[in-house]
Amino acid sequence: MEIRNIDDVRQFAAEKLRKHNLFQTERFFLDVYCLAPGQEQKPHAHEDADKVYVVLEGRCRFTVDGAAEEHGPSVAIFCPAGSSHGVINAGAGPARLLVWMSPPPAR
Amino acid sequence: MEIRNIDDVRQFAAEKLRKHNLFQTERFFLDVYCLAPGQEQKPHAHEDADKVYVVLEGRCRFTVDGAAEEHGPSVAIFCPAGSSHGVINAGAGPARLLVWMSPPPAR
Repeated sequence: MEIRNIDDVRQFAAEKLRKHNLFQTERFFLDVYCLAPGQEQKPHAHEDADKVYVVLEGRCRFTVDGAAEEHGPSVAIFCPAGSSHGVINAGAGPARLLVWMSPPPAR
Repeated sequence: MEIRNIDDVRQFAAEKLRKHNLFQTERFFLDVYCLAPGQEQKPHAHEDADKVYVVLEGRCRFTVDGAAEEHGPSVAIFCPAGSSHGVINAGAGPARLLVWMSPPPAR
């Protein structure tokens, strides 16, 4: 059985947000993003793929199509295909996000 | 911005597991399943769709292609397309799962 313990995925990088893949197929990926304070994923769009962020830890400021909101643990944010979306760790501590995308981009 | 607070999704039903949809498009769904002790999703397969269960709360016994394992919070279980997969709340308390499926079945 293929399993991952999300609590174990908390490796950060000094230079930029770190992405850890848990599972990926041609249909989706599931990642954990680890963001030190101030680190961000700049707003960008995928024309034909949906994304959902779920906050595991910390406080992040999300931007979806120009609207900005700050959210903490247990909040899920939907970024539909074509939307401009981004996130920054707006808190004083580490932030971790569960990130689903369907289908995955080439990478 | 379309958001959901996963912590708020904890409505159970006496007769069977209850599924709460958070987001759905033609590419995926993201649900929260609420299972009282002993409630289950019987093993079944989707030929062309991947599923991931993430345990939010409780202890569940997962079966994927005949292998059975019990897992608790923060564990993510991958059920690839074509696999037989199911889950039962094996604990004494409520269980909640975050469930991603890509693409969603007709329902």
